[in-house]
Amino acid sequence: MNQPSGASIGTIYGADAPVSGIAYVGGAYMPLAEASIPMVDRGFVRSDATYDVVHVWNGRFFRLDDYVERFWRSMTALRMEIPHSQDEVKAILHQCVRRSGLKDAYVQMTCTRGIPPKGSRDPRACANQFTAFAQPFVWIANEEQRRRGLHVTVSSVQRIPPQSIDPRIKNFHWLDMTMALFEAYERNAEVPVLPDAQGNVTEGPGFNIFALSRGRLVTPDRGMFEGITRRTVIELAEDLQMPVEVRALPAQELARADEIFLTSTAGGIMPVTRLDGAAVGAGTPGRATMALHDLYWRRHDEGWKSTPVAGEAA
Amino acid sequence: MNQPSGASIGTIYGADAPVSGIAYVGGAYMPLAEASIPMVDRGFVRSDATYDVVHVWNGRFFRLDDYVERFWRSMTALRMEIPHSQDEVKAILHQCVRRSGLKDAYVQMTCTRGIPPKGSRDPRACANQFTAFAQPFVWIANEEQRRRGLHVTVSSVQRIPPQSIDPRIKNFHWLDMTMALFEAYERNAEVPVLPDAQGNVTEGPGFNIFALSRGRLVTPDRGMFEGITRRTVIELAEDLQMPVEVRALPAQELARADEIFLTSTAGGIMPVTRLDGAAVGAGTPGRATMALHDLYWRRHDEGWKSTPVAGEAA
Repeated sequence: MNQPSGASIGTIYGADAPVSGIAYVGGAYMPLAEASIPMVDRGFVRSDATYDVVHVWNGRFFRLDDYVERFWRSMTALRMEIPHSQDEVKAILHQCVRRSGLKDAYVQMTCTRGIPPKGSRDPRACANQFTAFAQPFVWIANEEQRRRGLHVTVSSVQRIPPQSIDPRIKNFHWLDMTMALFEAYERNAEVPVLPDAQGNVTEGPGFNIFALSRGRLVTPDRGMFEGITRRTVIELAEDLQMPVEVRALPAQELARADEIFLTSTAGGIMPVTRLDGAAVGAGTPGRATMALHDLYWRRHDEGWKSTPVAGEAA
Repeated sequence: MNQPSGASIGTIYGADAPVSGIAYVGGAYMPLAEASIPMVDRGFVRSDATYDVVHVWNGRFFRLDDYVERFWRSMTALRMEIPHSQDEVKAILHQCVRRSGLKDAYVQMTCTRGIPPKGSRDPRACANQFTAFAQPFVWIANEEQRRRGLHVTVSSVQRIPPQSIDPRIKNFHWLDMTMALFEAYERNAEVPVLPDAQGNVTEGPGFNIFALSRGRLVTPDRGMFEGITRRTVIELAEDLQMPVEVRALPAQELARADEIFLTSTAGGIMPVTRLDGAAVGAGTPGRATMALHDLYWRRHDEGWKSTPVAGEAA
């Protein structure tokens, strides 16, 4: 443990706080290290919340409209409403980043159900709460892992199925992914990918998955969150004239793939070079993977589908 | 909405706050209305947390040791550790209730994963955080519902399966139950019970279920949290010489049951008199249900398996 196990929340908020960035809570901007949500908000005690995460790279939001539209669809699906328009939410996100001074940022918007009236358990009676924050850009993989490729395991834990929770609604129900992460560490892997009950792979903690299988890129069509980086890769593959199949991806097919990579707002396109202890392809980041990776970041440098943070030079 | 939808968290904390009670956070006691958890604690943003709830009735904790032992098993299963012993946790819970002045209370203990070090996503690197609170006793059903029996529906939403999350670890993954609750309201019911993928009923938001079927009490053995009130009912049924079967309970069998009731720390034993719009038995609380209900509360009056709150007259 990097912090003393008896650390109080006060200690966490101290000078050595692992938290930097700016939050918007209750109509005010504040250091993220001071931001909190009420103990009895259903967003915490019933994980009754949705969120979305957009990234800022080199002072520019990537596909901000797409992320905010998706956040709105998630809120609607959970029957939540906030007293802000999409434009107002975008302005708040711009403010969080501008005030943080960050050039590369991980920017989260969250809606929690709120607190029911006294004596009630009725989610319809809650005033839904919008919060947001910008913090330094988060990488799912560290620099070494991104260079040599990630070591992945297919977990024994199944992803929560769509019959229980619609995975297109971005949510905090991650205990399956957290337990799969512990299992991955025990298997000397770094991240897990979770199967469904039929043995198809779905997603892992914070990312979608692609395989190069018999010359075609394959990414799952079921049981997973529809990431915007996943969508971006499908578009970039068209530009590179790589055929893409969006369909069930059996774990057995993944095990025979020539290349594997992960996609995430928190890191872009990340090669996988070991799966369940065996080399993927030649055991080095694959050619198709790196072509997509390089195009993804070249497009970022070109300002493709991006918006300068308000107050920044365009 | 009972609160203006633009209410800030500041407003929620105001004089009309729907929250009363006392919390223990970061080593200090405070009004529950002022208690919060950090925005970036994984307990919130990854619902990486476990909890338990014990009740106090007429100044006495019910089965406190059993609840705290179960909380410890949940923490161990999630690989969490806190710098308190079970006796210290019990002392904190006693303090929360004593300081709240409540005679009848809903007392929650919670452990969140905490905040990872800067740049890390590793749950192993977090200092786990213990918090607790006592608030006024919560009833799953209001007084009228408890008297005339609840109206229940079997939801179209399936409970998160054990292959994804071990339901014996008490957790905040409730979006399936929350969406089932919205569906119940649309069907003119008051609470849902969720089936599993095989069509057996599991549990509903905050309760276990029992049916009287061909002269025997039946309660599910799979896919649900093992409630202590459920365990108490099994013990009381023995005292009343009612045979109990703990096994799969198909929704079709539930639909033909002579009696149905729900069990919860938040309300004890609650009759169900309508299921999916049809009367259960005679449409009034059943004899077995009420015999168990009355014995449950008589035992409470007698101080059975209970401990006086510290500082209260025994």
